[in-house]
Amino acid sequence: MTAFPRVLQGHGTENDFVVLPDPDGTVWAGDRLDAATVRRLCERRAGLGGDGVLRLVRSAHVPDAPQVLGEDLGRCEWFMDHRNADGSYAEMCGNGIRLFLHALIAEGLLDRAACAEGVLVGTRGGPRRVGAAADGGYWVDMGPAREFGRGAAELDGRSFPGLAVSMGNPHLAALTDVDVGSLDLTTPPLFDADLFPEGVNVELVNVVEPGAHIRLRVFERGVGETRSCGTGACAAAYTALRSEGVTVGTVVVDVPGGRLSVQVTPGTTILSGPAVLVSTGTLCPEWLAA
Amino acid sequence: MTAFPRVLQGHGTENDFVVLPDPDGTVWAGDRLDAATVRRLCERRAGLGGDGVLRLVRSAHVPDAPQVLGEDLGRCEWFMDHRNADGSYAEMCGNGIRLFLHALIAEGLLDRAACAEGVLVGTRGGPRRVGAAADGGYWVDMGPAREFGRGAAELDGRSFPGLAVSMGNPHLAALTDVDVGSLDLTTPPLFDADLFPEGVNVELVNVVEPGAHIRLRVFERGVGETRSCGTGACAAAYTALRSEGVTVGTVVVDVPGGRLSVQVTPGTTILSGPAVLVSTGTLCPEWLAA
Repeated sequence: MTAFPRVLQGHGTENDFVVLPDPDGTVWAGDRLDAATVRRLCERRAGLGGDGVLRLVRSAHVPDAPQVLGEDLGRCEWFMDHRNADGSYAEMCGNGIRLFLHALIAEGLLDRAACAEGVLVGTRGGPRRVGAAADGGYWVDMGPAREFGRGAAELDGRSFPGLAVSMGNPHLAALTDVDVGSLDLTTPPLFDADLFPEGVNVELVNVVEPGAHIRLRVFERGVGETRSCGTGACAAAYTALRSEGVTVGTVVVDVPGGRLSVQVTPGTTILSGPAVLVSTGTLCPEWLAA
Repeated sequence: MTAFPRVLQGHGTENDFVVLPDPDGTVWAGDRLDAATVRRLCERRAGLGGDGVLRLVRSAHVPDAPQVLGEDLGRCEWFMDHRNADGSYAEMCGNGIRLFLHALIAEGLLDRAACAEGVLVGTRGGPRRVGAAADGGYWVDMGPAREFGRGAAELDGRSFPGLAVSMGNPHLAALTDVDVGSLDLTTPPLFDADLFPEGVNVELVNVVEPGAHIRLRVFERGVGETRSCGTGACAAAYTALRSEGVTVGTVVVDVPGGRLSVQVTPGTTILSGPAVLVSTGTLCPEWLAA
C-alpha cells in the first residue's frame, strides 16, 4: 500500500461518502479494502465518517467487474466500487454516482467537457450512463420506473395510500396533504408484506406545484430516514406525474438534503443534482496502523 | 484567505474535532471562522463532521487571549481556539487539548521531545499544562477535583447516589453495581437542582478493580451521552479513590470511546490518553464558496 492513501470527502444532497482514488487498483488492491476497513473509514467519530465508500478504479482492475458487467465490460472504463457503511457491497446509488463522476473530474482522470453526453460507468447494478450538466451538477440515467400496484404506508396511526413503483428496488410513494415536515419517521412505517415481500422504501410527498415540484421525506428499508434517496426521488416524481394523468415530464424534488430534478421520459428516468467535494487529503499512517 | 485552507481530522477517545492549522492567524483572521462556518465544518454529512473545531494559532494572534490569559499571556505561545459544534466558544476540553498538542507536533510547529515536561497552552478557561507521554499519548493538568456534597441521579426509575465534584464544571459521579452498559441514557438523568443549580454532568461508574480501574458512561449537560468526557473521567476517578478511603492514586478509566488514565495528586489531577489524527488535507474551494 502507498504509505499515504489519498482520500476525498464529499456528498450528493447530503448522502455522504469517503472517496478513495485508486485508478490503477494498486492502492487498495486485494483485500486491503475489506469490510472492517470500510467500517472504520465510515465511523463518524473514530474515522472520516460517511454513508459509504466510493473507490475510483478502472473496471480492468476490479475482479468481479466481468461478472457484473458482462459484455458491457469493455464499454465501462471506470467502475464505482461502492460499499455501504457496514462494509457490504452496494449496487447503485443515484447520489453516489454523481459524486463519483465529480471526483473523477476533480482528480483530472476525466475531462468535464467530454462528459456532457455522459459516460458509461460500471456498477454492481450494471452499467449506468452519467454526465456533467451545464449548471455544474450531474445527471444519471436511472432506468425506467415500473408501477406494480397500489398500497398504503401506516405511520403515526395514519394511513398514507400511494403507488408501488420499482426503480430496480421497491418504493411506495404516497402523495399527501399532511405536511411531511411534521411527520415522525423515527419508527418504520408499516406496509403490506404481500405487495412488498422484500420490504419497501417509503416516500411521503407534498405537492408544491402539480406535476412540476414536490417535497418529500424518505424512509429507506434497513436504514431509517435519510437526507436523500435518488431512486426514491425518481419514484416520487413518477407518482406525482401519474397523479396529474401524465407519464412524462420534469419534476423538481426537494429532499431534506437539498434539491434534485427528475425527468421522466417514455423510456427511462434521468436524475439530476449537485455533487460537492468538501476536502481532499491523505489518510494518516497512525490511523491506518491502529 | 488562502485559497485552500489546510484541515486535519482527529479524535481523543472518540471526542472528534476538525483541526485548522493557522499558526500566524492569517488563514482564519477576523470573522472568517464565524459561528456559521464552524457549524458547517462540524456538520456530519454536508461538512467534515466533528464535536467541535480546534484552531492551532499563536496566542499573539488571538484578540481575546490577553483578556482570558491575563499575566500568563506571555507564557502561552499557543492558544487552543476551541469552538463547539454549534459555533459557540468553548473553554477547555481534556480530550481536545491532547489532540491540539498532537496536531502541533504533527504539523512540525512543536518538537515532541521538548514537550515531555509539558508546555503551557492558552485556552478560554485559562492556561493549561499539557505534555507528550512516553507511550505516544498525551497528558494534561486538569486542576484539582473539589467535592461539594452528595447527591443522586435518577435514571430508568432507579436512584444512583454519588459524589458532587467540581472540575471547574459540576459533576455527579455515581459508583454502582448495576452494569452501566445496560443503562438507557437516551433521556437526561434527574438530579437535585438545589445542589446543581447550573445543571450537572452525570457519570455512572462500575468499579473493575477497587481504587485502580473503573468503567463509566457519561451524560453531559446540554449534550446527551458522549463517547468520552475528560473532566468526567477525572471526577469519576477521584470518586473511586475516595470510596476506597484515599485521596491520591492512579485510576484507569474505560470510557465508551477508549481508555484514559487519571492520576490524582495532593494538588491536582492529571488526565492521560491517546490522540489520533485520521486525515490531513485541504478544504475544497467549491465547499468554501457554497
